[in-house]
Amino acid sequence: MKSVLLLLNLWFLTSYSTFAYIVDPGPSVKATKGALWPKPKTQTTSQRYSVIKRSSFHFQAVNQTCDILTKAIDRYQKIVSNVGNESRRALFSASRNDNNLARRSWRSDVNFNEYLEEVTVDLKAPCEILPYLGMDESYDIIVSETHASIESYSIWGILRGLESFAQMVVLSEDGSMLYVNLTTISDSPRFSHRGLLVDTSRHFVSVSTLLKMLDGMAYNKLNVFHWHIVDDQSFPYQSKYYPELSEQGAYHPSMVYTPQDVQNIIEEARLRGIRVISEFDTPGHTRSWGVSHPELLTACYDQYQGKLGPMDPTKESTYTFLFKLFQEIVEVFPDKFVHLGGDEVGFECWASNPAVMEYMKQNRLYSFEMLEETFIQRIVDQIDALNRSSLVWQEVYVNGVRLPNGTVVHVWTGNRQDLLYRITKDGLPALLSSCWYLDHLSTGGDWRKFYNCDPHDFVGTKNQKDLVLGGEACMWAEVVNDHNILQRIFPRVSATAEKLWSQEYVTDTDDAARRIEEHSCRMNLRGIPAQPPSGPGFCI
Amino acid sequence: MKSVLLLLNLWFLTSYSTFAYIVDPGPSVKATKGALWPKPKTQTTSQRYSVIKRSSFHFQAVNQTCDILTKAIDRYQKIVSNVGNESRRALFSASRNDNNLARRSWRSDVNFNEYLEEVTVDLKAPCEILPYLGMDESYDIIVSETHASIESYSIWGILRGLESFAQMVVLSEDGSMLYVNLTTISDSPRFSHRGLLVDTSRHFVSVSTLLKMLDGMAYNKLNVFHWHIVDDQSFPYQSKYYPELSEQGAYHPSMVYTPQDVQNIIEEARLRGIRVISEFDTPGHTRSWGVSHPELLTACYDQYQGKLGPMDPTKESTYTFLFKLFQEIVEVFPDKFVHLGGDEVGFECWASNPAVMEYMKQNRLYSFEMLEETFIQRIVDQIDALNRSSLVWQEVYVNGVRLPNGTVVHVWTGNRQDLLYRITKDGLPALLSSCWYLDHLSTGGDWRKFYNCDPHDFVGTKNQKDLVLGGEACMWAEVVNDHNILQRIFPRVSATAEKLWSQEYVTDTDDAARRIEEHSCRMNLRGIPAQPPSGPGFCI
Repeated sequence: MKSVLLLLNLWFLTSYSTFAYIVDPGPSVKATKGALWPKPKTQTTSQRYSVIKRSSFHFQAVNQTCDILTKAIDRYQKIVSNVGNESRRALFSASRNDNNLARRSWRSDVNFNEYLEEVTVDLKAPCEILPYLGMDESYDIIVSETHASIESYSIWGILRGLESFAQMVVLSEDGSMLYVNLTTISDSPRFSHRGLLVDTSRHFVSVSTLLKMLDGMAYNKLNVFHWHIVDDQSFPYQSKYYPELSEQGAYHPSMVYTPQDVQNIIEEARLRGIRVISEFDTPGHTRSWGVSHPELLTACYDQYQGKLGPMDPTKESTYTFLFKLFQEIVEVFPDKFVHLGGDEVGFECWASNPAVMEYMKQNRLYSFEMLEETFIQRIVDQIDALNRSSLVWQEVYVNGVRLPNGTVVHVWTGNRQDLLYRITKDGLPALLSSCWYLDHLSTGGDWRKFYNCDPHDFVGTKNQKDLVLGGEACMWAEVVNDHNILQRIFPRVSATAEKLWSQEYVTDTDDAARRIEEHSCRMNLRGIPAQPPSGPGFCI
Repeated sequence: MKSVLLLLNLWFLTSYSTFAYIVDPGPSVKATKGALWPKPKTQTTSQRYSVIKRSSFHFQAVNQTCDILTKAIDRYQKIVSNVGNESRRALFSASRNDNNLARRSWRSDVNFNEYLEEVTVDLKAPCEILPYLGMDESYDIIVSETHASIESYSIWGILRGLESFAQMVVLSEDGSMLYVNLTTISDSPRFSHRGLLVDTSRHFVSVSTLLKMLDGMAYNKLNVFHWHIVDDQSFPYQSKYYPELSEQGAYHPSMVYTPQDVQNIIEEARLRGIRVISEFDTPGHTRSWGVSHPELLTACYDQYQGKLGPMDPTKESTYTFLFKLFQEIVEVFPDKFVHLGGDEVGFECWASNPAVMEYMKQNRLYSFEMLEETFIQRIVDQIDALNRSSLVWQEVYVNGVRLPNGTVVHVWTGNRQDLLYRITKDGLPALLSSCWYLDHLSTGGDWRKFYNCDPHDFVGTKNQKDLVLGGEACMWAEVVNDHNILQRIFPRVSATAEKLWSQEYVTDTDDAARRIEEHSCRMNLRGIPAQPPSGPGFCI
């Protein structure tokens, strides 16, 4: 038998490792308890804890206040008192038949500190009205033996602090109490622009879903909702000046954002310290505009006969139309920035149109990039005239449009290191999205891929790095609708959110995996239908 | 300028086609209206139609009846009267401001036939109690100028016919009425086993979600719920004989399927003509069993010291334990078939265990495949003794276990053509799943990939082909939970459902794209959160 066994042993060495299949029962990643997402700048936590009674716990504003603050306190009061509620109910109902679950008496626990009834909210400067690029979002939290407070010189910092405090509150193992460890936090974001793009043209996304998304963004300290509101497929934005755009360009009369809807979304975003930046992408991605205004678009000829292409850059009427619309847009959307799009302009239609070719000849435009440049230049100037700043997709920069100081270039494809280097070398601010496309799917989950992307991962001077304002995760909506969009955004966007908030050295994916496991469950408990981040597991 | 223009023209030819970007506004795929999914064997449809009033429409059983029939009529009565309801409401509310939407008067339409108040349901033979492999699911539908009927010699055919009829009912463009075209359908399935596997171990799936899934399966004429109920990670099945398995092996006391839950699911499945086949996978994928019964599993040594591996095939007590559990399982699950698993058995733990090695030596087992064979042989024999038939994953066949006649081999990986050829050549029935893994994700949607897979796509005789019973789509649950599982299943599983129901020549993906667009919206209206199948679009 010896030779046979020797043979077996040899065979083991060469072959059985391919069948390695020893797992442990239970979740693939053990969740943290009361850990923050995104990770704060500094945090010290004690073993000692204070116990929170749902009935008497409250936040108390002790200094400056305003509607943003009082409404935030209302929201977070509810969130704190709902921590673990469902799980506790489930556990209690199950434990009726289970005598193993004895309740722990925390009063005799050496780590028990006291009952925490009040957290003071100390806003040390008057509220600002609107969130903006570069707003102060720093805050401090102290949960000491004798008191607990959230402090900031800015209402925006207070909002972030309330979120952090709420994340620290956890349910005890036996489900009998909420508690919070004695903790000191001093926190501020690494990047000032931390965004989520949502496309509401490929599929219409209902207002209630967008509002829930804003909640989810606040739970991740994201501060920009980039609203890619219209595109080729549909025009759901109801314009005051041009109501026909949505009347004829929306998918359906019920699938429009009325002025009231838009105001509502902007207001709920403002209350959460989230800017709403609109994008009316031109000159490409505009086919739906042409349902009511075909004259805006280029008529195609030859093999594209009967089709309509990008906006017609040769007609003065195109610019007149746009200027009036932009006047409306800057009235409706209070943010300093307007996203002008400028991506993926197809040249085949311009090339087929004799009038366009003649115009190029007359104006000595030797390439379609130059033609595109004349268009973009006009609308960038319009936005400038309206005292706003522009965001543009990278093509506008790559094609050589002369951009006013402060125009932000948005990187979405190609070699991101090279692009960020060139853009910032030219003194322009930049945003990164290339590595955070939420519509790109991977079997088995992909937050780690998103997490391993850093906006400063390019060669450049400190000045260049400082020009990177942050980035945005992008939820293009070709294959998401109201039924799956929030599931696809959360918790994958959380990876982006942490990269943009937390310090550069926060790169430990194992630690992140444990925290995102808790954070996903936390979002579930708060009503966000986040999908599982990493693998087998459960939320209680 | 001529040379410049020539240069331009040359440049166009070589370069601009890469920027092709001319799209039409609106959905990427135009949905059908009242088309069936899956496509029936034969259907003739007239331009003429009958109008259905929600208030008076009803199904009338005119021959044999039973609880399955009366409950199905209740369900489909509701479904028919809800067709287009939401969309109509939305349209009407929008059209208050839109005078362009004039109502069509169908009474004067040459294609208007009559008002359809009653559809007779003619079951020509007594009801069977339980669905089973090879049950008759054929039916006929006639909607003629004078009457409408659904006819079958089997209750299962009646269920499929009710679904088909409900799919034919559509809302008119102006939202003012429901109608159905005069139609004749004669239909039966191509394959008798049309399944969906759902894993409830990697994540616990709530009973309410499973019940909704059964509805969705019925809407796609799927007839087997393969319940992969336990696995390494958790043991949610509450056993009558061994309650400790779930008490200690479930993720949480609240995350178990009680006997009542299981009965409820089997009953709701039965009422929809859906078999429930349980899978208690052994000897691998059993780590959660070991939380309460470590003695069942192989103790690992060497670098795996302290870990537990697959079931210990050397102990008689393992087989005694399993036989008692299988006695329970065949009492609880009435289906003739029990899925025994047998996939992905890791050999490294067996190899590390001296007692296992000694057992192999004593019993002259020269490979771990042979050891695995002795285990599987024992439990296949147990199932045989319990008068049931076994389904096994392909490894069991590949490893050469002697299988009783009628044991079904389930193909899930590797070269499917080769495996199906070999299995059927050996006279064994086969099921296909390899090409229908719902946990494998692709950017932009992938139902077309699932649709381009045919279980008969292998070289073999007619006898061999006849041994292919059908297949199953597999929803492994590593990264799905209650929040996204239905979205991920539907409508992707619809592709599998049509391949298994419709005739071999139904392969036109363009036609399928139009129908699956409607079918997804239909599922949405009926409460199934199906995601978009193909791209930009909307449901009204």
